[in-house]
Amino acid sequence: MISVGVIGYGYWGPNIVRNFQSLDLGCVKSVSDINSKVLQKAKKAYPSIHTTTDCHEILRSPEIDAVAVITPVATHYPLVKEALENGKHVFVEKPFTDNVSHAEELVELADKKNLKLMVDHTFLFTGAVKKTKELIDDGALGAIYYYDSMRVNLGLFQTDVNVVWDLAPHDLSIMKHLIKAKPKAVVATGECHVNGKEDVAYITVYFEDSVIAHFNVNWLSPVKIRMTLIGGEKKMLVWNDLVADEKLRIYDKGVTKSNGDGQNVHELLVSYRMGDVWSPRIDQIEALGAETKYFVDCVENNKTPFNDGVAGLEVVKMLAAADESLSNKGGMVYL
Amino acid sequence: MISVGVIGYGYWGPNIVRNFQSLDLGCVKSVSDINSKVLQKAKKAYPSIHTTTDCHEILRSPEIDAVAVITPVATHYPLVKEALENGKHVFVEKPFTDNVSHAEELVELADKKNLKLMVDHTFLFTGAVKKTKELIDDGALGAIYYYDSMRVNLGLFQTDVNVVWDLAPHDLSIMKHLIKAKPKAVVATGECHVNGKEDVAYITVYFEDSVIAHFNVNWLSPVKIRMTLIGGEKKMLVWNDLVADEKLRIYDKGVTKSNGDGQNVHELLVSYRMGDVWSPRIDQIEALGAETKYFVDCVENNKTPFNDGVAGLEVVKMLAAADESLSNKGGMVYL
Amino acid sequence: MISVGVIGYGYWGPNIVRNFQSLDLGCVKSVSDINSKVLQKAKKAYPSIHTTTDCHEILRSPEIDAVAVITPVATHYPLVKEALENGKHVFVEKPFTDNVSHAEELVELADKKNLKLMVDHTFLFTGAVKKTKELIDDGALGAIYYYDSMRVNLGLFQTDVNVVWDLAPHDLSIMKHLIKAKPKAVVATGECHVNGKEDVAYITVYFEDSVIAHFNVNWLSPVKIRMTLIGGEKKMLVWNDLVADEKLRIYDKGVTKSNGDGQNVHELLVSYRMGDVWSPRIDQIEALGAETKYFVDCVENNKTPFNDGVAGLEVVKMLAAADESLSNKGGMVYL
Amino acid sequence: MISVGVIGYGYWGPNIVRNFQSLDLGCVKSVSDINSKVLQKAKKAYPSIHTTTDCHEILRSPEIDAVAVITPVATHYPLVKEALENGKHVFVEKPFTDNVSHAEELVELADKKNLKLMVDHTFLFTGAVKKTKELIDDGALGAIYYYDSMRVNLGLFQTDVNVVWDLAPHDLSIMKHLIKAKPKAVVATGECHVNGKEDVAYITVYFEDSVIAHFNVNWLSPVKIRMTLIGGEKKMLVWNDLVADEKLRIYDKGVTKSNGDGQNVHELLVSYRMGDVWSPRIDQIEALGAETKYFVDCVENNKTPFNDGVAGLEVVKMLAAADESLSNKGGMVYL
Repeated sequence: MISVGVIGYGYWGPNIVRNFQSLDLGCVKSVSDINSKVLQKAKKAYPSIHTTTDCHEILRSPEIDAVAVITPVATHYPLVKEALENGKHVFVEKPFTDNVSHAEELVELADKKNLKLMVDHTFLFTGAVKKTKELIDDGALGAIYYYDSMRVNLGLFQTDVNVVWDLAPHDLSIMKHLIKAKPKAVVATGECHVNGKEDVAYITVYFEDSVIAHFNVNWLSPVKIRMTLIGGEKKMLVWNDLVADEKLRIYDKGVTKSNGDGQNVHELLVSYRMGDVWSPRIDQIEALGAETKYFVDCVENNKTPFNDGVAGLEVVKMLAAADESLSNKGGMVYL
Repeated sequence: MISVGVIGYGYWGPNIVRNFQSLDLGCVKSVSDINSKVLQKAKKAYPSIHTTTDCHEILRSPEIDAVAVITPVATHYPLVKEALENGKHVFVEKPFTDNVSHAEELVELADKKNLKLMVDHTFLFTGAVKKTKELIDDGALGAIYYYDSMRVNLGLFQTDVNVVWDLAPHDLSIMKHLIKAKPKAVVATGECHVNGKEDVAYITVYFEDSVIAHFNVNWLSPVKIRMTLIGGEKKMLVWNDLVADEKLRIYDKGVTKSNGDGQNVHELLVSYRMGDVWSPRIDQIEALGAETKYFVDCVENNKTPFNDGVAGLEVVKMLAAADESLSNKGGMVYL
Repeated sequence: MISVGVIGYGYWGPNIVRNFQSLDLGCVKSVSDINSKVLQKAKKAYPSIHTTTDCHEILRSPEIDAVAVITPVATHYPLVKEALENGKHVFVEKPFTDNVSHAEELVELADKKNLKLMVDHTFLFTGAVKKTKELIDDGALGAIYYYDSMRVNLGLFQTDVNVVWDLAPHDLSIMKHLIKAKPKAVVATGECHVNGKEDVAYITVYFEDSVIAHFNVNWLSPVKIRMTLIGGEKKMLVWNDLVADEKLRIYDKGVTKSNGDGQNVHELLVSYRMGDVWSPRIDQIEALGAETKYFVDCVENNKTPFNDGVAGLEVVKMLAAADESLSNKGGMVYL
Repeated sequence: MISVGVIGYGYWGPNIVRNFQSLDLGCVKSVSDINSKVLQKAKKAYPSIHTTTDCHEILRSPEIDAVAVITPVATHYPLVKEALENGKHVFVEKPFTDNVSHAEELVELADKKNLKLMVDHTFLFTGAVKKTKELIDDGALGAIYYYDSMRVNLGLFQTDVNVVWDLAPHDLSIMKHLIKAKPKAVVATGECHVNGKEDVAYITVYFEDSVIAHFNVNWLSPVKIRMTLIGGEKKMLVWNDLVADEKLRIYDKGVTKSNGDGQNVHELLVSYRMGDVWSPRIDQIEALGAETKYFVDCVENNKTPFNDGVAGLEVVKMLAAADESLSNKGGMVYL
């Protein structure tokens, strides 16, 4: 079992530590955070784990095989870089970095050093996304027409990034994971109302073929919505992530061109198929548990994770393009 | 009571006739349609009404005071123009026209002839919209941050227009009716999958201040959704038009800038107010009945309807701008 | 096509007339009601139909083949009896009669006169009930464990009957239609709060085997609920009649006895199957239209309707037993 | 801070320990269970806590002030009795005991020994129940007409009790807590399908006035439902415990007797008030945390808990009456 050092024990760090620890024999050796108060919590929960306010101690420790970087995005580049330079495999929080060139440099460095670099796109390990990928890969939905997601709620406002960098990485990574077509360009619109950063934004991704993806992210919604519609030529899917059961519904509905007699303008050339609705049972496993296990497996058995630095880079490219388009108030930005 | 002639007895026409007839003494004198089959239905339902396949008969009849034009959008301009030139008041189906200059010309003509010109934006007469307007005008929501609507379902595909011209007129007219801020520019993205016209589209409207509006229209959704979120500084509102009761929910939720101590990056500078939720009772009246009654009232008492040609023109301007932006794949188009 | 006379043009009568008229050639010859005002409405809607305040005119007319009795339940017995004695087939509103002996007498009389007698249990003709019956008859649910329905809303209070006789006939007739097991006894509880008649009631029906049925009927609920759960050995079904789509959901869930190792008290002897959920498409036809068509077919082709007097009698027996049990505040009443 | 010993570390015990520990200084000194495996879990989670397979060690320890009995109901009587005889205050899992006389004896013993005896009816400490009690006590709902709860799901089958003793204690204790009227009699119906114990049951509780309560409990439902309707003279309330937000809705709806003109049988004597709907914000605190804190407070400051043995006894009386009625298939059993 590899030895893991975790840098950052704020909002998400404790979940990372808990899951790495839940693996056989627990593999977290050290935890660091600049805030000594939170380290006390870590110590109380895991008396056996070493804690420090100096992350370099972890980054350079010969006893650490892999480092989990669970810190604000602006710090990802220097920390991941130092980890790789010291021969550590890296598990890094999403978004991978706050700009494209940094992400590209890190991917290259990991490659050169032959180290594993995984970006924490947790949703890719949920039962809902796994089942949806199965369905799409099996051709159950047919050719994909569109991917339309809505991720809105009240807050939490971030001070270091806008709503795009906070919420969209989830959906962009899921979309990229599910859809084989190649994203071509991004158009984004939005506004700032509260703290000078966009708190409402709408992102459209164009593809090389006629697939289109859209992302509605909002920090100012009174209701929490986590809904994704995927329209396919054969079937259509709705994923409501907030319901306990039946998160996925697959609709045997579709549209086909037909030779209308032209009499009825409302049906000319198009006919509709209205069939049954089916809600497959999906695994209830904790996604982060599966992901940490997968990371260890990739490191120990020298596998390339599907959520590696390259996948993280593609998400960063779309986020950066969205920011550029936002600053132009719309306007297409090619990837 | 005025005499009304109705041109077009297809999908929507029968509702128009039924509602004009339901007014005291019923006021529909003639109905025309190019399809003699549907005229037989009209005759069977209303033996007393004159029917004809020649719309000009109605447009020129000295016995007709007002004409309702319930035909495909491409025919609105010539029919409304002929009606106005013959001194008839006009009630015309939405969208008003298929281009801006035609709409401008008709507004001018009606003005010159001192005739009433009403565009059928039926939703403005629903209990939900009326109550929402009250709340916004009374300042209950405070300054408006955003207006976000979703109007998606499977079909009906139109052969003469894309999904923007088919579904967005509803939401654009409602938004214009509710929000006082002046729309400044439009950004639209979308794709065609079935019949060469956009069947999925996303429209953003920028305003002179930081208000932003967004419209998600889709002919390829397996589920029918009619949902609008309105975020205000004081309160937020969700309108779900598909539920029988409690269509409107007003959330006493909001965000206020606060002097965070900077310790917790997640709350810095922003605090949240989470209060009660309130669902006001709204009128159950049939909107189209109220609208036809209002039209007769405006004609008989020489009132200017709030949904007049000018209001219809503003919607057409946004639709035309959306089409132009769509053709540029998301470029900003100023209004 | 037979000639139909309709007695009673109050709340439900107009729907009966509209549907009989919608059949080819329309078959309603006369309508009667004690209230001449409502007859004017009938005349306006159907100028060709004869109207009268004297129901006996219809009951004795040689030109009438069948009579639809759409009047308060207390009048069903004398009207149906007179109709049968005059050789008319009868379509009668539910509940069939207000006591068992009257129902038995009418069944006998119809039988003796060889006339069709159909009780208007409209729900049996809905797509949801038809599909559910298919599923049960095909054994998809396996042996039925329980039938549990909830039919609650605010009002409408009846002056002539309590909530049991007003709402339960729907669910009792559906249950009887779906479940082959023989009802054995009834237990009912309830209370009066407003007008001296039970406005809240709970009915349990025991069967000869271990099937159990329960009916929750309530005139004092702030929310409208129309939900039925059917538990089977193989699958379970939930019918929510208030949603536009997906009214039926079939759950591939169940319980099987297993040889637990006794270690875990929570699983001992029982294991659970948690599979997919499936929502079959159901017909959207108007139930009353199908029922009136079926009535005419039964009369013209001498078929015995499944919702005949015998079926109506079985419902009346359960209603009467429920009343008796109510008066004992619970206590089993054998059928 | 008092010292607490916890007997039983199965399904619920760990939650009890966690919550008592979360109080300042943590107060759990010892945990016992007959299963040494689960004690290892306890030891791993709380190294400082003493564990033993001999509950008597705890029951007799001079260092223990209070004992929490979190074991199967059949063992409550002997364990609670021994605890009280040894001068320990007692926190006992619901249902209090499996028969009335045992409960009465324990209440008496605690009283004689002047020791605190609290029954774990956790729901009484939820924000939803606290808010509902406020509303009822403040008269917001007016005189209560009925209390109607539904608590159904698939399993978990218990081996020692039927569905009534498993699920109904929650709702009976909540109902008793909220409604001041005195329960008078119980009628219960149900059936056994799987393991020889009732897995579906319906309980009606009659009161001295016209209040009526009904409880639908079911281990064989494909869907999980936790819904309670409370009808009042002035307002009505719906509690859906499964939604994250807006668990409570208060409806400004009601029925009032009016002097109908007798023309319309459907409105005679009764009129309806249809007003707004309101969903109050409720506390999100963990109920069990509040309850354990309250227990310690009652012990340390010699307060009588509202969920004391007497309250627990009243629930047991209704459960026993329900069982007796069940065995008579619905006969009324006076309390």
